[in-house]
Amino acid sequence: MSKSPEDEHPRKAFAWAARDITGILFPFKFSRRETGEEDVSIKVMYCGICHSDLHAIKNDWGNTNYPIVPGHEIVGVVTEVGSKVNKFKVGDKAGIGCMVGACHACDDCNKGLENYCQKLIYTYNSIYHDGTKTYGGYSDMMVADQRYVVLFPENLPLDAGAPLLCAGITVYSPMKYYGICEPGMHMGVVGLGGLGHVAVKFAKAFGMKVTVISTSAHKKKEAIERLGADSFMVSRDPEQLKTAMGTMDGILDTVSAVHSLLPLLGLLKNHGKLVMVGGPARPLELLVFPLLTGRKSVGGTLFGGMKETQEMVDFAAAHKITADIEVIPMEYVNTAMDRLARGDVKYRFVINVAETLTDS
Amino acid sequence: MSKSPEDEHPRKAFAWAARDITGILFPFKFSRRETGEEDVSIKVMYCGICHSDLHAIKNDWGNTNYPIVPGHEIVGVVTEVGSKVNKFKVGDKAGIGCMVGACHACDDCNKGLENYCQKLIYTYNSIYHDGTKTYGGYSDMMVADQRYVVLFPENLPLDAGAPLLCAGITVYSPMKYYGICEPGMHMGVVGLGGLGHVAVKFAKAFGMKVTVISTSAHKKKEAIERLGADSFMVSRDPEQLKTAMGTMDGILDTVSAVHSLLPLLGLLKNHGKLVMVGGPARPLELLVFPLLTGRKSVGGTLFGGMKETQEMVDFAAAHKITADIEVIPMEYVNTAMDRLARGDVKYRFVINVAETLTDS
Repeated sequence: MSKSPEDEHPRKAFAWAARDITGILFPFKFSRRETGEEDVSIKVMYCGICHSDLHAIKNDWGNTNYPIVPGHEIVGVVTEVGSKVNKFKVGDKAGIGCMVGACHACDDCNKGLENYCQKLIYTYNSIYHDGTKTYGGYSDMMVADQRYVVLFPENLPLDAGAPLLCAGITVYSPMKYYGICEPGMHMGVVGLGGLGHVAVKFAKAFGMKVTVISTSAHKKKEAIERLGADSFMVSRDPEQLKTAMGTMDGILDTVSAVHSLLPLLGLLKNHGKLVMVGGPARPLELLVFPLLTGRKSVGGTLFGGMKETQEMVDFAAAHKITADIEVIPMEYVNTAMDRLARGDVKYRFVINVAETLTDS
Repeated sequence: MSKSPEDEHPRKAFAWAARDITGILFPFKFSRRETGEEDVSIKVMYCGICHSDLHAIKNDWGNTNYPIVPGHEIVGVVTEVGSKVNKFKVGDKAGIGCMVGACHACDDCNKGLENYCQKLIYTYNSIYHDGTKTYGGYSDMMVADQRYVVLFPENLPLDAGAPLLCAGITVYSPMKYYGICEPGMHMGVVGLGGLGHVAVKFAKAFGMKVTVISTSAHKKKEAIERLGADSFMVSRDPEQLKTAMGTMDGILDTVSAVHSLLPLLGLLKNHGKLVMVGGPARPLELLVFPLLTGRKSVGGTLFGGMKETQEMVDFAAAHKITADIEVIPMEYVNTAMDRLARGDVKYRFVINVAETLTDS
């Protein structure tokens, strides 16, 4: 008989978990493994709320295994290290993102692209090597293989830096891979949410011109004055589209709703790249002609590998890039999820786990 | 008052042209310009029949300006050269492909990518710099700027080499640009027609493993035994698809009919590229998830620039790559068009222009 979450491992742990498709999160007692040779244990300080967490707790993707403890934008302090751990010492700041394991034998793992490994183990809602379920960062502590933990730069704020572990790498990696990161290039960012607002900051740090593309004008002032975008366009305005046709080297599309790609392809210069990081559940329409006549392409990426994630947080620290956040206590999480579903957040909720998650 | 095609230029020329949307080709008297300083005049020997010719004569793309003389897979012999021509001398074999002019000032032209120039002048159904219409290779002679003429290698057959000027470069250029050209890679070719069969030959010359992907099994024997493909799969067979999932580095999709991209994306390895060279008129469905989880992309290209076209014919000559053709007399052209519309050709019709186009 399989053991309960509370008994399967020796160390008591505490979290908030969803138990069914209502997605409502409740206090949840479970357990964590001992610190293995290659493991680090981390006291969780802050955890960002990613839109994926909302999808997962409501089983929007049909693969949720309840109870589920979400959270994959985790920042904390190392409390214990295994005998073979060389990257960390007790007291270090550490970050955990979207994954905690992979096969370490395939081509992708060998290239530092663990995120594309067929045996990728997600930070929550996956099955770990030992056969037990993975639980995320809405919890008091984490135990993870050091390979999946980044050294969190000292000068990066723990709270506003936490969302970089998912939102940050999710926009940084495609910009690097598809070559939309050279000074002087013009990049479009579709959607100004958790991903989009961080994309604007990285793009500016790379020295690019950035245009935010949104369905309505109400974020214009903020995009330009607060986030530093160079310009703003309303994607439903034919005049604005016409003026900007053929001006962009690349576009990062962060929108998960079904939307039209044709105007975006038109905004690209010849040889330009449209990169999807949001994942609409239904197919989008793709007219092939613009791909031919302008040698354009539509690609995607899924967060990033561990080497690149470390590079990204170091880059963010050097360029003082953080997310714009609203810090909330643990007990506010269900309200936060409702607001997130309505797009009512600028731009990321971050749970103050260390000070507000109490086993009571 | 604008002059008639017969009178606008000083040199008499003769061709077959379509005069209306029936697309039926008739003998047609027109004229060509004198050989300018940068021009070469060419006696047309052979001209391939591209599927684009069929679309153009029937105004399938809505932009046909009748009368139209199609033909952009033209091979002939230089009969006269302008005073500033240094690439050619009288008697040289020469080839003309899809374009005869561009702006020579934009970034693309400066990079040898004239085919993406916004002012690209197509070999037929375009307006040339002098304001007159361009007429293609179903004609006795061509006059063209030397920049748009390739030196046709001596050991490449004129008839079977002609289709390389469009079909050849259309498959060669994307393989190079998207990096699907390294020895040991596995490439899929969707559709075994004029483009597909040449793609198989180039892919084998690059040292790749090639799988032909077709809707029915009837071309299997030929794909493998005659064209040298390593394997063949029926795209509608779920078992075959399943076996081949995640095995291809790149796929070249030559199909212009509306079709599903999802199985093709599944056949790609992580980081694989699906490259479209056929242009379905209606949008295709694109599910974004496979692009994210496998960092895959869908791109396209439109034939190739002149530098690369010369490189391609030289490569073809070195590797003895030609199209599989059926040589026809000019008067058979309307029957050939009917057969092409039914897919009844292996794999390219080539008109023996020099010996069968007579002004009578």
